[in-house]
Amino acid sequence: MSRSITLEQSQAIIEACRSEATTIGQPMNIAVVDDAGHLVAFAAMDDTKLIGEDISQKKALTAVYFQMDTRDLAPLVQPGQPLYGIEATTTGKLVVFGGGVLLRGADGRIAGGVGVSAGSVDEDHQVAEAGRKVFA
Amino acid sequence: MSRSITLEQSQAIIEACRSEATTIGQPMNIAVVDDAGHLVAFAAMDDTKLIGEDISQKKALTAVYFQMDTRDLAPLVQPGQPLYGIEATTTGKLVVFGGGVLLRGADGRIAGGVGVSAGSVDEDHQVAEAGRKVFA
Amino acid sequence: MSRSITLEQSQAIIEACRSEATTIGQPMNIAVVDDAGHLVAFAAMDDTKLIGEDISQKKALTAVYFQMDTRDLAPLVQPGQPLYGIEATTTGKLVVFGGGVLLRGADGRIAGGVGVSAGSVDEDHQVAEAGRKVFA
Amino acid sequence: MSRSITLEQSQAIIEACRSEATTIGQPMNIAVVDDAGHLVAFAAMDDTKLIGEDISQKKALTAVYFQMDTRDLAPLVQPGQPLYGIEATTTGKLVVFGGGVLLRGADGRIAGGVGVSAGSVDEDHQVAEAGRKVFA
Repeated sequence: MSRSITLEQSQAIIEACRSEATTIGQPMNIAVVDDAGHLVAFAAMDDTKLIGEDISQKKALTAVYFQMDTRDLAPLVQPGQPLYGIEATTTGKLVVFGGGVLLRGADGRIAGGVGVSAGSVDEDHQVAEAGRKVFA
Repeated sequence: MSRSITLEQSQAIIEACRSEATTIGQPMNIAVVDDAGHLVAFAAMDDTKLIGEDISQKKALTAVYFQMDTRDLAPLVQPGQPLYGIEATTTGKLVVFGGGVLLRGADGRIAGGVGVSAGSVDEDHQVAEAGRKVFA
Repeated sequence: MSRSITLEQSQAIIEACRSEATTIGQPMNIAVVDDAGHLVAFAAMDDTKLIGEDISQKKALTAVYFQMDTRDLAPLVQPGQPLYGIEATTTGKLVVFGGGVLLRGADGRIAGGVGVSAGSVDEDHQVAEAGRKVFA
Repeated sequence: MSRSITLEQSQAIIEACRSEATTIGQPMNIAVVDDAGHLVAFAAMDDTKLIGEDISQKKALTAVYFQMDTRDLAPLVQPGQPLYGIEATTTGKLVVFGGGVLLRGADGRIAGGVGVSAGSVDEDHQVAEAGRKVFA
């Protein structure tokens, strides 16, 4: 197995997320997965919320599975919209709101995903975005 | 492991909830969890509904995981709102309506949660609140 | 629904178990279920082990489901014995060693079960037995 | 919620495990959980095996739930032994062989657990032990 993202890269992403989370004053759960959705690195900042332990990982996975940021899923899953009800599929593995971002390598290939959880949806996305910046 | 809430405190909470439930004439399921979401005490009052066995425990857990009362989640998970679809995540462990309340110690730190289920959402919250009062 | 065992009876059982557990110096998780396997009362003593939160409840349920004490299941599930492999059935709900005891009413009818977990199998059974004594 | 182990401590444990794993030439999955079994930090070393993603986390949790190293569970769960069949309980959350170690603070209280997976059981335990050394 040759992974699409190394542990070193994943830890650098987590550090960038952690720094951004500290700046905005919201301790976060931060997860990085590879291009198959498998967990490479995870960190729960002190005094974060337990809900984010699970949801951060699933946001990262959802970004990879859909090949898009999770906040772009939100409009598609509303009542009457094309993917309405999809969050109930695949046994609770999907998160259909912001906080998960897709990572692509320099060649444009999908490399993995970052998921962040514990703040508002906008804060979560902002922190995940900070992680993506140090990868791209 | 040093728990954030003792069995004695948890049983006092259950007694207060039971008394309030008797007053309003609705037998309840009552659960108390610690600050990690683990069950410390549980009581199903005679003639309550079976649906509450599971839901009361998950309300208590949800309050702790989100660090808020579960009734404050309800507006956030409606169609078009930020957390729409979250209840389908984490494989059925979350309850996104009233009846779960957060317990904080004298120092403000999270100590656990109380979950109540079998009546209306308002009755459930009222009974859980009665339990919180004897803890704070 | 008219339950086979009341909350008051269940709390008396838990008190008897708690007292016995204190005597032997092993803090326990104690669960009482009714004749359908539904949870009526639960208590986690301070400084007990987390493994018992789940297992105590499943011991009580297993006793009711099989209409026997769980320690009598152990010989039947060994390699080459009649019920070999049964613990993998019913999705992790069964416990096939001691610590769960069956409760019968004065008329001989099954009333419920008591499950105890955190000590050795023999300690768990002894504490559950102390609960059964105050019911019969 | 005041966690029993900080992110900084957990990352130091992962670094120590990673260093030991590099020395023995076996890339590992390494998980650190708090005293309630919740994940604080995780790292999958490059070229490790996917099976360890899940098992390392469950080894850490099992150590905390049982308050013992997981390798000490192995003799207890063999056919004819007291806990035979326990791994089928609690729906696949337990690991009953080596590679999970218990963390205690200077005061002797349980602080969390470390789980390592991808090598032989002895290698996994050795790497987890290296993490424990930098914590105690």
